[in-house]
Amino acid sequence: MRLSLTNEISDLINSYHELNSGPVDELEEEPSPLEFMRYVARNLPFVVRKGASDWAAVKEWNAKYLVDVMGEQLVNVAITPHGNADSVVELEDNSLIFVKPYDTEEPFSKVIKKIQDQERSLSSQEPTRYAQTQNDNLRNEYIQLFSDLPKDVPFARISLQKSPDAINFWLGNSHSTTALHKDNYENIYVQVRGRKHFVLLPPVEGACINEQLIPAATYTPRPTSTSSSTSRSSPTSSRSHSPSLADTGTALDEGLNDLVVSLDEPEENVPFATWDPDLPDQRPTPFSKYSRPLRVTLDEGDMLYLPALWYHKVSQSCSSEGICCAVNYWYDLDFSGSFWSLCSFTRAVGLLTLGRNPQHGEEDDA
Amino acid sequence: MRLSLTNEISDLINSYHELNSGPVDELEEEPSPLEFMRYVARNLPFVVRKGASDWAAVKEWNAKYLVDVMGEQLVNVAITPHGNADSVVELEDNSLIFVKPYDTEEPFSKVIKKIQDQERSLSSQEPTRYAQTQNDNLRNEYIQLFSDLPKDVPFARISLQKSPDAINFWLGNSHSTTALHKDNYENIYVQVRGRKHFVLLPPVEGACINEQLIPAATYTPRPTSTSSSTSRSSPTSSRSHSPSLADTGTALDEGLNDLVVSLDEPEENVPFATWDPDLPDQRPTPFSKYSRPLRVTLDEGDMLYLPALWYHKVSQSCSSEGICCAVNYWYDLDFSGSFWSLCSFTRAVGLLTLGRNPQHGEEDDA
Repeated sequence: MRLSLTNEISDLINSYHELNSGPVDELEEEPSPLEFMRYVARNLPFVVRKGASDWAAVKEWNAKYLVDVMGEQLVNVAITPHGNADSVVELEDNSLIFVKPYDTEEPFSKVIKKIQDQERSLSSQEPTRYAQTQNDNLRNEYIQLFSDLPKDVPFARISLQKSPDAINFWLGNSHSTTALHKDNYENIYVQVRGRKHFVLLPPVEGACINEQLIPAATYTPRPTSTSSSTSRSSPTSSRSHSPSLADTGTALDEGLNDLVVSLDEPEENVPFATWDPDLPDQRPTPFSKYSRPLRVTLDEGDMLYLPALWYHKVSQSCSSEGICCAVNYWYDLDFSGSFWSLCSFTRAVGLLTLGRNPQHGEEDDA
Repeated sequence: MRLSLTNEISDLINSYHELNSGPVDELEEEPSPLEFMRYVARNLPFVVRKGASDWAAVKEWNAKYLVDVMGEQLVNVAITPHGNADSVVELEDNSLIFVKPYDTEEPFSKVIKKIQDQERSLSSQEPTRYAQTQNDNLRNEYIQLFSDLPKDVPFARISLQKSPDAINFWLGNSHSTTALHKDNYENIYVQVRGRKHFVLLPPVEGACINEQLIPAATYTPRPTSTSSSTSRSSPTSSRSHSPSLADTGTALDEGLNDLVVSLDEPEENVPFATWDPDLPDQRPTPFSKYSRPLRVTLDEGDMLYLPALWYHKVSQSCSSEGICCAVNYWYDLDFSGSFWSLCSFTRAVGLLTLGRNPQHGEEDDA
């Protein structure tokens, strides 16, 4: 039975790729609502090169402009030792944890300066900062910047018959990478400054990404006394194999240079992708070899349609000012029709075939 | 493992129905191409009541008009003892066969008269005739009638960016039923005279329909000598339990009243649905109880969008003239994107869970 299922899953992935070959479609201009809906119907991504080049944000934003508008206002910032917000970390005993960033508030002017300084290697001992709250922050803490952006993306609004559920502002540098994950959203992503490098896997590759249920943890500044009983020291980044955190803390910035991993209390296990298409030999499943990641880089003014439930890993390069800045519009996935149900089923069968229990709830949107 | 799969399949069907409740959508007018593409994207049917009431065919066609146009021209006609073209028949030993009609050519005027006479009980001993070739017959043998129809359905052509692969003419009476099956087509179905009664099952219900691989056979007039070695007598219709064919032949019309089932040579097994949502206690799978068939009746001038890969069973009622006449436009399913691949996978997993081999090829479009 399991052997037969294994064959069906590899057939699924391989036949999908036979029917969907080649790179991400590139459009010369924004699609019409109908053209967009054809992509939604097929759940296929596209890029519109320079599709947002007329947006005020793309024309105007730079470090000085952003500081002029946002000034000393407190903003949420994710702080991590290796730029690994919401990622899988392998501990010294080879066990895996899902580690969330230390979330705090700092004045915007400080956040952007720290991001720039780190990019220019002026503060290599500092942790990595990433403004990436994904909680509709452009209509909340960054509302002053929102006037430089369209209130929604007309072709998406007309096509999907809904307004965006969240509009997000992202500011970071090349030290941050967003680990492979998926969202229940149709995503219109616009690069403003710097470049973003996407690695994209279609939903049919759910059995490739080695989803596992792993303990959730959070980076926290080391308590001034001894480590708490629930913290584990010396995690090694699954990507960079940097020195363990316990070794890095010398020049403290409010203790943030000495972040340690603390298991969440109460204990919680979260399902998360543990395979990285950029490190294909680490933690593969028997199906990972069938994955054919699509890669696309967004330049300033480019617009990406990232379809719902596609796995994506995102890294970034900075503008000459040492920042990488983007915005995105999230439209709720339509759960009616066949697509959501079929994808959930396929994910569950993949987990069963890998000997895992699919009844642990849906993957977090983190 | 099989128990877990069983749970996943019942979860798939039940969660689909939680997300897609209620009857078939009814639109007040033809959708725009964008509105249509939203239905295609969700793979959900709709009806446009009176959507084709302006078509010349709907306004003009009646028995006399059709005979005036088509006259004595030879047309293909499917002849069966019980109106069961392309259907599952249970033999006396309880084995199943997939039986195709006796296909022959007759003058159109004769075909329509036989259809009317049978409907008016003037020829109850006759076999059932159904003009249903589904081979683009409106652009071939019925080309003289095609001028009464649009060359395609504009909202579908614009939306799907293709012309119809086939445009078909259907003429029969209430004795004919089309057994539950699916097609790889987006289908725009227009009722012209009489009524059609559709029973619709979404693709996620593939494990409900008890697809089995069964021997193919064809109704053939009994040879004037003894039955051939490959024919089996006394099949019983899976629906009507009519007397066995061997008992019916008395007043012969060119031998057509004595149709016997002949196994195809060389032997061929075809995958076909063996569960009938109208006889739910016969040949169910453990999943059939989760099926929630949608039922919709088309009246004259009504238009149905029957999405690709939906299982459908179709019965019919006649106009006062004793005919049921319809046309349909088949647009090729888009095999790219996720939908086709996910449906094929789901069908295969359903078959595996039922202990069957999914590698026997796709179901015939018959």
